[in-house]
Amino acid sequence: MPAAMRKGGRLVVVGGVAAGLSAASRARRLRPDVEIVVLEKGHDVSYAACSLPYYIAGVVGPRKSLVVYEADFFRRERKIDLRLGAEATAIAPRARTVDCRYEDGSEETLAYDALVLATGARPIVPPLPGVEMPGVFPLRSLPDGDAIKEFVDSGRGRSAIIVGAGYIGLEMAEALVARGLEVTLVEKLQNVLSTFDPDMSSIVERELHSKGVRVLTGAGVEAFEPGDDSPSVSYALVDGKRVATDMVILSVGVRPRVELAEGAGLELGARGAIKVDARQVTSEASILAAGDCCDSSFIVTGKRTWIPLGTTANRQGKVAGENAVGGSARFAGVAGTNISKVFDLQVAQTGLTETAAADEGLTAGSASITASSRAHSYPGARPIRVKVVFEKGTGRLLGAQMIGEEGVVKRIDVVAAALSSGMTVAELASVDMGYAPPFSPVWDPVLIAAGQALKKIGS
Amino acid sequence: MPAAMRKGGRLVVVGGVAAGLSAASRARRLRPDVEIVVLEKGHDVSYAACSLPYYIAGVVGPRKSLVVYEADFFRRERKIDLRLGAEATAIAPRARTVDCRYEDGSEETLAYDALVLATGARPIVPPLPGVEMPGVFPLRSLPDGDAIKEFVDSGRGRSAIIVGAGYIGLEMAEALVARGLEVTLVEKLQNVLSTFDPDMSSIVERELHSKGVRVLTGAGVEAFEPGDDSPSVSYALVDGKRVATDMVILSVGVRPRVELAEGAGLELGARGAIKVDARQVTSEASILAAGDCCDSSFIVTGKRTWIPLGTTANRQGKVAGENAVGGSARFAGVAGTNISKVFDLQVAQTGLTETAAADEGLTAGSASITASSRAHSYPGARPIRVKVVFEKGTGRLLGAQMIGEEGVVKRIDVVAAALSSGMTVAELASVDMGYAPPFSPVWDPVLIAAGQALKKIGS
Repeated sequence: MPAAMRKGGRLVVVGGVAAGLSAASRARRLRPDVEIVVLEKGHDVSYAACSLPYYIAGVVGPRKSLVVYEADFFRRERKIDLRLGAEATAIAPRARTVDCRYEDGSEETLAYDALVLATGARPIVPPLPGVEMPGVFPLRSLPDGDAIKEFVDSGRGRSAIIVGAGYIGLEMAEALVARGLEVTLVEKLQNVLSTFDPDMSSIVERELHSKGVRVLTGAGVEAFEPGDDSPSVSYALVDGKRVATDMVILSVGVRPRVELAEGAGLELGARGAIKVDARQVTSEASILAAGDCCDSSFIVTGKRTWIPLGTTANRQGKVAGENAVGGSARFAGVAGTNISKVFDLQVAQTGLTETAAADEGLTAGSASITASSRAHSYPGARPIRVKVVFEKGTGRLLGAQMIGEEGVVKRIDVVAAALSSGMTVAELASVDMGYAPPFSPVWDPVLIAAGQALKKIGS
Repeated sequence: MPAAMRKGGRLVVVGGVAAGLSAASRARRLRPDVEIVVLEKGHDVSYAACSLPYYIAGVVGPRKSLVVYEADFFRRERKIDLRLGAEATAIAPRARTVDCRYEDGSEETLAYDALVLATGARPIVPPLPGVEMPGVFPLRSLPDGDAIKEFVDSGRGRSAIIVGAGYIGLEMAEALVARGLEVTLVEKLQNVLSTFDPDMSSIVERELHSKGVRVLTGAGVEAFEPGDDSPSVSYALVDGKRVATDMVILSVGVRPRVELAEGAGLELGARGAIKVDARQVTSEASILAAGDCCDSSFIVTGKRTWIPLGTTANRQGKVAGENAVGGSARFAGVAGTNISKVFDLQVAQTGLTETAAADEGLTAGSASITASSRAHSYPGARPIRVKVVFEKGTGRLLGAQMIGEEGVVKRIDVVAAALSSGMTVAELASVDMGYAPPFSPVWDPVLIAAGQALKKIGS
């Protein structure tokens, strides 16, 4: 960990979206006297990347509403030297310098007292023939979103193929259906939303079908092809069959951006992300990392993991910013809590699925129940499916998944809180949850599921 | 605690609404061989008392939808000898008998091996002149609800005075406004919803005003008076002023029904409720109690308390039923979590308010924030007010209150879970809560409030 930063010392942050600006802002709050430079390769800072599907759908807008704070806000209000179009190209850890190339071609070597890497992740672009063709879009950055929105706004797209059925793929399916496109979702695994157990993700798959999305699971995309009279994508080859399409969205996942870190000789950790400790410090004491580029501690197993999420990026950024200027904050780790809207469904997960628990070598059991979102007599009640995963014998809570039309997304946080304190399912079943007919049955669905789990713990 | 019940032994349960039938059902599940007799003075069992305001409003119905299970269900499916119109009049603990009087005038003395008291609570009827007049209604039981609904349905009421501005008073204000009545709410304390801190309840008071409810706080009702040509209530005397009204709802609270227990020499505990231990056993080893008639452990202070709620009644009933037939279940205690709908607001509370913490002699601090229910860019986002109460110095979480149009009622359960495990505000601030633009900002309002609290802990 860096020593307390000298008066007038310099913190350099690489990356200006979520983690980078959280770090810079936190450092500034603690130390009005230090110099803070943020190098951002692109031209958009502090934007809500998770809102891009809703921006494309036309639900969220105008574009500027996606930007939480403009660059000038950081410069003016927080006295942060935020440089756009500024690419960090190399780090010299012993000399404590970072090389930077600006858009005008000029270069500079900046000395630092502490460095925070917030280089994020990049979308995986599968090496398929035709993948670079016009009409094939990744979705990660605000410019990616701009390109997709412009294409859809132009009316050139009547049909779309989405490759990859994770959250971004599903959210894009909803967005493009809302824009009137015929959508085909292609997933190479046997189930959509493979971060859920198959019995849960099958509920999501039914929702997709019912909303007119064509879902091809266990299906491989082999190539993209142009049309006879168009340089733009017009076909995808899926398991040998030609499927006509006007556009393709690539949402097969992301990888941490670690080239800069690797070049500096930093150790890599879980899933190839930058290895950090609980204080977000890398293998070099003066270099910290935060957000999608680095790993984190998984509170359920205690192991290092890599789960790139905006919430984690912001939280780690704060910790890195504090410690970069001499603090000693600790990042408490992640439960991997994630929520999403898939058409009319709320979908939520935290901790380990049953599948993931088995992969971890744990002897896991599960209890799944369907209960009502409101008192049975209250109008508008909808079923909620809740699956609780636990360790057999000990009854330790390992995770939960929930799907339903209402009342799901914040119920998952009850389980996230329970995971934070290492509760057993017996303890979860004893949480004094609130009840009122418009919002819950007397026995909350979480309590019912925990109660069922209790019966299956064994010894 | 009763010894393991002999084969063919008899469990008698007094009371057949929430706690009583939870106890009887649990006992039956564990012991198919014992005799289970439930004595219910009234004619309605297992009904959703908390739904009565919605039934009167016309939101919930028909009447039978309020009944979770009919009496015959318990008799037929659960082999429970459920007797209606059966009043327990006296207990002889040494002889292990309970005297019962039936509606036809006959009497019987029943021997028991174990007895569960689930006698509930009764509404407080203030001893005011005219309080027994037609048109003055308490609201507690299903027959109470029937009487109010019949009166409103008849069109005889154009205006109503509600005495007492707790949850039932507020829910009835909403119900009667929905039925087209002019409603005046009279509360003797300075604030409505006095279980909240005044800074929070003032938000609720504004909502009541905006929905056309006339709110008189710090106001005392002195008497009720008939009309010139009507035996029914036509005026209430409020601080010396005559206020015309067609009906009066009394919602000034409830008291535990303990006459039977007192007659049997059982010890009373918190707030005059029957004293029980964590196994729901009273001061007599063969007599247990559950629900609104008995006290419970408050997990925040470890002290005994009395917070009559349907959720607690069901949970305690299960524990009492299990232990009555020789089990050793423990009731984990209550956090006092309560939620309600007040017109367009969701209102929620758990643990101690700042006021209550001071009353407990704790050195409490609080942090209050207003945040958004969704990402700032996502349409439909509404403000949520969150107040977190903590112990100064230690930072131990003591409670929370939340009010907003959406996303409140299950967020309070995150704090309830945190109270269950004795978290500090630092630990609450580290819970990995889910984020998606339609449902939450990146920093969840709970985390923002906990983060603010962190800064105010002091040493």
